[in-house]
Amino acid sequence: MDGHIYKSFDRELHDLKESLLYVGSRVERSIASAITALEQRDTALAAQVINDDDMIDAKEVEIDEFCLRLLALRQPAARDLRFITTAIKINYDLERIGDMAVNICERVEELIREPQLKPYITLPQMATTVQLMLKESLNAFVNEDPALARKVIEDDTKVDNFLDQIFHELLAHMMKDLSTTSRAIRLLFISKYLERIADHAVNIAELVIFMVEGTIVRHRKQSS
Amino acid sequence: MDGHIYKSFDRELHDLKESLLYVGSRVERSIASAITALEQRDTALAAQVINDDDMIDAKEVEIDEFCLRLLALRQPAARDLRFITTAIKINYDLERIGDMAVNICERVEELIREPQLKPYITLPQMATTVQLMLKESLNAFVNEDPALARKVIEDDTKVDNFLDQIFHELLAHMMKDLSTTSRAIRLLFISKYLERIADHAVNIAELVIFMVEGTIVRHRKQSS
Repeated sequence: MDGHIYKSFDRELHDLKESLLYVGSRVERSIASAITALEQRDTALAAQVINDDDMIDAKEVEIDEFCLRLLALRQPAARDLRFITTAIKINYDLERIGDMAVNICERVEELIREPQLKPYITLPQMATTVQLMLKESLNAFVNEDPALARKVIEDDTKVDNFLDQIFHELLAHMMKDLSTTSRAIRLLFISKYLERIADHAVNIAELVIFMVEGTIVRHRKQSS
Repeated sequence: MDGHIYKSFDRELHDLKESLLYVGSRVERSIASAITALEQRDTALAAQVINDDDMIDAKEVEIDEFCLRLLALRQPAARDLRFITTAIKINYDLERIGDMAVNICERVEELIREPQLKPYITLPQMATTVQLMLKESLNAFVNEDPALARKVIEDDTKVDNFLDQIFHELLAHMMKDLSTTSRAIRLLFISKYLERIADHAVNIAELVIFMVEGTIVRHRKQSS
């Protein structure tokens, strides 16, 4: 992605895909590490995710600049134009997802200061689902695969169900023992951050379907 | 914004600004109506906001298409290119803000089915602040005004303070009477949706500063 003008345009588009997949994999790793930090009460790992976000942000700015250069120098026609502008939006989504991983780690740092409320079972499952949705939404983009994009959108009901389940589990804890409330609410926030990551994956999937088929998909959540 | 090719490019950029401001004002109105629906327990108004979102979405797709046409037909140079790609991202933020107003109304519809937990004082104040941030972020964009954008970013601490205050008020209610928990959590979610709208306004402000000055502003939240 060094943007030498003598590269072929196809090669540049290929580089753009690779770069987005690379940032996507970094962001996925941040989510995974954030949940590991929660489970293992690992302050250093949480701090590392927060630190790494600057590197991810820098990479995203680089991708954005690369897209602008492609638009300016290559003046692409309809199909490539839509591909590049979609890449700009997906890159913007990835930046926000990175921020969510940071937010999770901030809550983890707070949670570690108190005894663990409960064993974490549903949250890691929810995180695994969300990571898969993110990975598949990016694969749907680079392979221009609307079927895979539709799978991502369907998987969002799993996330809603996880959220409901976590919500009720935490409510039960609060009901039984009021002293758990602030920890329960922090865990609830973490599940909401995961839900937002899933929302971004769904956004990406919708962009892919629109890019390939020109069909607008508007997914409306009915979450608790 | 009918995109006739005989229009001047300046005129088209002007139309683009007007369209974004129009969608922005519609979205602001949705936020205001959502909070009015909460305060006045007005199911019909909540339903109307949810319905109106389709219209807002359609307008956003139109703006997106218009930006693509400008990129394809006008092949703008550096400055205008950055303006248009920034408009694409802001338009994307506005769509998400519209979704948040819908989410608020869904929680309002649930809240109306139960007695009102408490008089709402802080939430409407928070909503007013958030609406102003949105309006000013869009004005900062159309007027290319980084000083106003910086004010928006600074105002975000007010939103964090409102969120903290609401969080503690609701926690106190839950502690006193466990039967209020589900209502308190719905209100907490509404305050989180408002926080997310503020985040989008901050995103827009950051985009404006980057567009005008080329400076990357990364705002990291420390919210509860």
